[in-house]
Amino acid sequence: MESKRYYGVDVGGTTVKIGLFQDEQLLEKWSVPTDISDGGSHIIRDIVRSLPGPADGAAMAVPGAVLPDGTVNRCVNLNWGVCRPGDEFAALTGIPCRVLNDANAAALGEQRLGGGRGHESVLFVALGTGVGAGVVLDGHVRAGTHGAAGEIGHLCWDPSEAGAPCTCGRRGCLEQYSSATGIVRLAVQAGVTGLSCKQILDGAAAGDPVLEAVADQAFDALGWGIAAAAAVIDPEAVVLGGGVALAGEYLRAKVQAAFDRFAFHACQGTPIYLAALGSDAGLIGAALYAKDAGC
Amino acid sequence: MESKRYYGVDVGGTTVKIGLFQDEQLLEKWSVPTDISDGGSHIIRDIVRSLPGPADGAAMAVPGAVLPDGTVNRCVNLNWGVCRPGDEFAALTGIPCRVLNDANAAALGEQRLGGGRGHESVLFVALGTGVGAGVVLDGHVRAGTHGAAGEIGHLCWDPSEAGAPCTCGRRGCLEQYSSATGIVRLAVQAGVTGLSCKQILDGAAAGDPVLEAVADQAFDALGWGIAAAAAVIDPEAVVLGGGVALAGEYLRAKVQAAFDRFAFHACQGTPIYLAALGSDAGLIGAALYAKDAGC
Repeated sequence: MESKRYYGVDVGGTTVKIGLFQDEQLLEKWSVPTDISDGGSHIIRDIVRSLPGPADGAAMAVPGAVLPDGTVNRCVNLNWGVCRPGDEFAALTGIPCRVLNDANAAALGEQRLGGGRGHESVLFVALGTGVGAGVVLDGHVRAGTHGAAGEIGHLCWDPSEAGAPCTCGRRGCLEQYSSATGIVRLAVQAGVTGLSCKQILDGAAAGDPVLEAVADQAFDALGWGIAAAAAVIDPEAVVLGGGVALAGEYLRAKVQAAFDRFAFHACQGTPIYLAALGSDAGLIGAALYAKDAGC
Repeated sequence: MESKRYYGVDVGGTTVKIGLFQDEQLLEKWSVPTDISDGGSHIIRDIVRSLPGPADGAAMAVPGAVLPDGTVNRCVNLNWGVCRPGDEFAALTGIPCRVLNDANAAALGEQRLGGGRGHESVLFVALGTGVGAGVVLDGHVRAGTHGAAGEIGHLCWDPSEAGAPCTCGRRGCLEQYSSATGIVRLAVQAGVTGLSCKQILDGAAAGDPVLEAVADQAFDALGWGIAAAAAVIDPEAVVLGGGVALAGEYLRAKVQAAFDRFAFHACQGTPIYLAALGSDAGLIGAALYAKDAGC
């Protein structure tokens, strides 16, 4: 089979990460700043200007919902409304370009070449400012009818939550407990102010009893949420990524224990791994998506 | 394309329903009693004895977990342990026979020819003695790694549930609220004894305030559970089947409202339909599964 070149592009709110791949191998990577002025209308042009040459295909991971036809339905962090950035990229470069959600791209990268390697059906959970997830079944990303598959951050963990509502407007969403902001919020509720999520989890791992109780609240909610997702798709494996997952084995083991407690018996013991590709997961997954599409 | 004949078999705890199909058309159907004596070892032979003649393929829906290779991992209601009933059927008849879970078979039937007709990705929810579900994505049943995909009856709705535990041993599972037995349990908790699930829902629909409050508890939990599943797979449509769903439009409208209240914004408005194939859904779905497999 003839070898082909692909661009994998991961558009974040402050930086766009770009990689040039030969088949599944990363040849080089670089980044450009994300200019969200003028409704984010400079972003694609800035990406295209940075490209070193032609390629056979490309895919772009974006922080928002992507419909099955490649239409983006709002990326708040990029100031994008409804748009078709893949078409703009293709028009400027002549390179066919697919678009997918960034958590879905990371899911595909981690399933194929990262923490989920060797498993065909993987739930990837991204623990950052929010909680997102990507669903890969039989090696293919499942984006869902409205691009909302894997939105487990908005599973309702506690409908009686008395604190401030979630950014989505409802109460008790999983990400109010298990995201970086959620963990800081739980610490404040426990009387601990001024600590970052990393400081809280470091303190918990070091045995501080108050911080440990905070971490356990976050991990219990997350284990419950992953168990709920497993009861729907019953994946072979789960991969935890995003900044919060840098807490590493301490977090992984606690989440696995909470998962096994909440999971339907047939799903208990489904292995939960840590992500392995770091911040490259999105651009790697995007390149794999372009390759799978046979661009 | 040459027309082919398939048997669709739906093995229940008291009756086996069998249909002979030409392509997707039901030619005739009949049933045989389920003899669960001697570890359920007579069941397949009794089915085979009732068949009117040869066919190109068959599939058997069973009330238990089915692994991707067709191995059944216990059917409590049939007294089956780990076994391969499709192989036994094929050895006795010479007809290749696939095996799938009964809720998954009903899901495929309802998606293709029933309440979900016209939609490729459907969550089918079976409301009976328990709460089960089947997941059909892009027209294909997704059984999951351990045959547990769609086990939403064991989503944990209320971890603080103080009553008796669920049959699975944990507390607060969705089916403790939204199954027929769950609804009767809620009525007893509300001080109403001696009524069947049907009588409770009939009374609720007729405006009895105590029974209405019981029904609303059941529908809220169900709407929440379907919203959780939608946040994972984001289907095009949801179909409600099983005996409890015979409460009809009263139930459907209430569950749709609860779903819309709990669902992630992108999934709100996902249509919820009533099942249309009644108790034939399983045998129809089994026949479609045999046909899709190209038996």
